[in-house]
Amino acid sequence: MDQLLYQGKAKQLLATPDPATIIVRFTDTVTAGNGKKRATIPGKGALAAQISMRLFELLSTQNIPTHYIRQLDEQSFLAHKVQIIPLEVVVRHYATGSITKRLGIPKGRAFQPPLVEFFYKSDELGDPPLCEAHIYALGLATPHELAQIVSLAQRAAAILSDYVAQRDLKLVDMKFEFGRVGEGPGEGSRILLADEISPDTMRLWDARTDESLDKDVFREDKGDLLRAYQEVARRLNLTLPLSASGEGTGEVGTGEVGL
Amino acid sequence: MDQLLYQGKAKQLLATPDPATIIVRFTDTVTAGNGKKRATIPGKGALAAQISMRLFELLSTQNIPTHYIRQLDEQSFLAHKVQIIPLEVVVRHYATGSITKRLGIPKGRAFQPPLVEFFYKSDELGDPPLCEAHIYALGLATPHELAQIVSLAQRAAAILSDYVAQRDLKLVDMKFEFGRVGEGPGEGSRILLADEISPDTMRLWDARTDESLDKDVFREDKGDLLRAYQEVARRLNLTLPLSASGEGTGEVGTGEVGL
Repeated sequence: MDQLLYQGKAKQLLATPDPATIIVRFTDTVTAGNGKKRATIPGKGALAAQISMRLFELLSTQNIPTHYIRQLDEQSFLAHKVQIIPLEVVVRHYATGSITKRLGIPKGRAFQPPLVEFFYKSDELGDPPLCEAHIYALGLATPHELAQIVSLAQRAAAILSDYVAQRDLKLVDMKFEFGRVGEGPGEGSRILLADEISPDTMRLWDARTDESLDKDVFREDKGDLLRAYQEVARRLNLTLPLSASGEGTGEVGTGEVGL
Repeated sequence: MDQLLYQGKAKQLLATPDPATIIVRFTDTVTAGNGKKRATIPGKGALAAQISMRLFELLSTQNIPTHYIRQLDEQSFLAHKVQIIPLEVVVRHYATGSITKRLGIPKGRAFQPPLVEFFYKSDELGDPPLCEAHIYALGLATPHELAQIVSLAQRAAAILSDYVAQRDLKLVDMKFEFGRVGEGPGEGSRILLADEISPDTMRLWDARTDESLDKDVFREDKGDLLRAYQEVARRLNLTLPLSASGEGTGEVGTGEVGL
């Protein structure tokens, strides 16, 4: 049994014999509202893992450095071990969710250019919003690192948005996390896109109907979360693993069928 | 009777025959917690006005453009009429108040360089924090205007801090507001430091004891607010107007006595 390094809300990080790598294993747990709402949805972990792996592979081909190395099994991948920078970097293409309440911006308004926001990863403080000056005052990243982070977030958002748009999906917003490898913080370290890229961390709407195909289905009790994630996987032409193919939900995996 | 243009929490803005100017009149009202806590303290308006006028005059001599023109009476001054930019620009030299709770920064920690923060002036939204990208997305100011605003805020904070330090006061933090005159927003407009600069909008601590000499005395029920403001006026060598000299509080104005 691999040693558990970290138990997150929806993922586990496990040690490997190589201290430079870890295993990222997706669980079937889904949470919302800083962990206040929680459920277990069998098959959800495998779906989030498959989607995440496909999107990390996509970004790698476009020269975005990520922590992803390779798939291990249907809900785990091997990754570079990074020192996580405690920032949630949110890129918004359209206004929805917290920003509409926080700043009174109407739902659905497009941000041109995309809006990049930072939140301090701190459950205790409720993930408060930060600006660049706070990030430096708190010593979370150097200006050199933050410039890389913003550039990577903007580039990754554009690549992902174009990719899903070809599959009739609208990428509304997304949350990225970054980590450093090597000696850091400072010039000696390198920044990698870490964490996951899945409907747990992105808002994806059907391009025609604006129907949510992401965690908002769970957050807002809008229906069957597994079905929404299966639909995303289907549009990304993913071969669904057995555990995510909808047994018990009346749904059959249709992974090989393109759009 | 001059026409009331705006009734604020602690000030009134009145029209003058010249459409390019207004009268800023300080009232004896003091509020805290977005207006939830409120009191009337006779003499407080005149003190805040006198301190504000002295500090606007100081900044003018140091080439900071402000809306202040000249004193009218003990609690009013004539000012350029500006279009207020709905931002509270906070400059922090030391951590205290909301930021200690919001970001878990220990009280008293020095910010080097001073931390500049923005809040959206919106009672309805509870004055939420903003970053530069939000300010542009909301259309509140142009990048050219915001660069001027930040530069003026930083320079004004440094001038005020040096000035009060010579009078045994520590300028802990302050809130500035800015307005535009001329055609704006855009290149045709000019940015002026507006509003007021008083212990209602700055935190001033006794340099030796860290005792609050500002609105925190009221916010936190730490004693006699008028006495604190009188002490600030005394250290700034202000001649106290009769209404602010402490009749009825057992205190005698000592405006001519230097430190």
